[in-house]
Amino acid sequence: MRLLEEKIISEGRVLSDQVLKVDSFLNHQIDPSLMNEIGKEFAARFANDGITKIVTIESSGIAPAVMAGLYLNVPVVFARKRKSLTLTDDLLTASVHSFTKKETNEISVAKKYLSQDDQILVIDDFLAVGQAALGLVEIVQQSGAKVAGIGIVIEKSFQQGAEKLKELGLRVESLARVASLSNGEVQFMNVQVEELV
Amino acid sequence: MRLLEEKIISEGRVLSDQVLKVDSFLNHQIDPSLMNEIGKEFAARFANDGITKIVTIESSGIAPAVMAGLYLNVPVVFARKRKSLTLTDDLLTASVHSFTKKETNEISVAKKYLSQDDQILVIDDFLAVGQAALGLVEIVQQSGAKVAGIGIVIEKSFQQGAEKLKELGLRVESLARVASLSNGEVQFMNVQVEELV
Repeated sequence: MRLLEEKIISEGRVLSDQVLKVDSFLNHQIDPSLMNEIGKEFAARFANDGITKIVTIESSGIAPAVMAGLYLNVPVVFARKRKSLTLTDDLLTASVHSFTKKETNEISVAKKYLSQDDQILVIDDFLAVGQAALGLVEIVQQSGAKVAGIGIVIEKSFQQGAEKLKELGLRVESLARVASLSNGEVQFMNVQVEELV
Repeated sequence: MRLLEEKIISEGRVLSDQVLKVDSFLNHQIDPSLMNEIGKEFAARFANDGITKIVTIESSGIAPAVMAGLYLNVPVVFARKRKSLTLTDDLLTASVHSFTKKETNEISVAKKYLSQDDQILVIDDFLAVGQAALGLVEIVQQSGAKVAGIGIVIEKSFQQGAEKLKELGLRVESLARVASLSNGEVQFMNVQVEELV
């Protein structure tokens, strides 16, 4: 997605050859117009997949997921990173280790918001080693619902997350695919043909 | 806001005379179409206030804030509830006690996303005793920016948060104002005149 790649080039900060910081438009400050375009793009890519619900994870997944939900006309459920005392319902849970934050969280979704008739689109902001996405997939599968696909805003393609998900037979649609962060520069995977014309 | 009040009546669950649970459309599962209408309504109410940025708090403030940001055409910054190891920038912080979750969090915003020229709209999902909103106001004021107003999705008007904020000279716009949760029923404050015609 050209608009997103341009934003990453102009505002993303490469902190190391592993870490790309995009907290001026996605992870701390949010650009609502860009999120709107991202939502449209996810909706277009999954328009024919019978999506009935989107599952994401707090906090940075919420903005792109809600915009996608608006255009697909489906509800969004966000997994919480620990139990809330007011969430007394039965929960579906998975353990997710964050290498960035060096901590393991239990993520959870209330059982009642997922059913075996659901076709779920999983959305997240980043895909690196795949821990968060795998945790969300695990939760969806516990409910008996089907994972119709995974929508990622920024994929770090030099890490193994996308590959792991595809090995599980899952369709992954990433709007920006970062091939390398070496030498302080963002390099993207293949340029989309339709963006060249 | 009639649409929101109807949603609260049809899907909200009164757990006690203090606790209203709306996790089917706001706090866990999110209704994107409703958030879109909420965003439009906030934008209309603050259309003439020169808003330059919205500040909210993760996680449930993000969806309404991003929709409001879309219609006001301004960025959204969400305060984090604890420091992230990858947020190395200088932070503005405040302490917020949650009576619902029985815990105190440090909330923080990176200094660089607020400036003294900003006119800030603070948005949050709930206003009860006002701890979260007061924490956000404190952070905005630390930056030298001006709080132009506070937009709340659901105000529990029988608690003192709205009053406290108004005593500080702040304008509070709440889209639904709950007068009482007694006897397992949601009663709203005065019906808006324009909704009767």
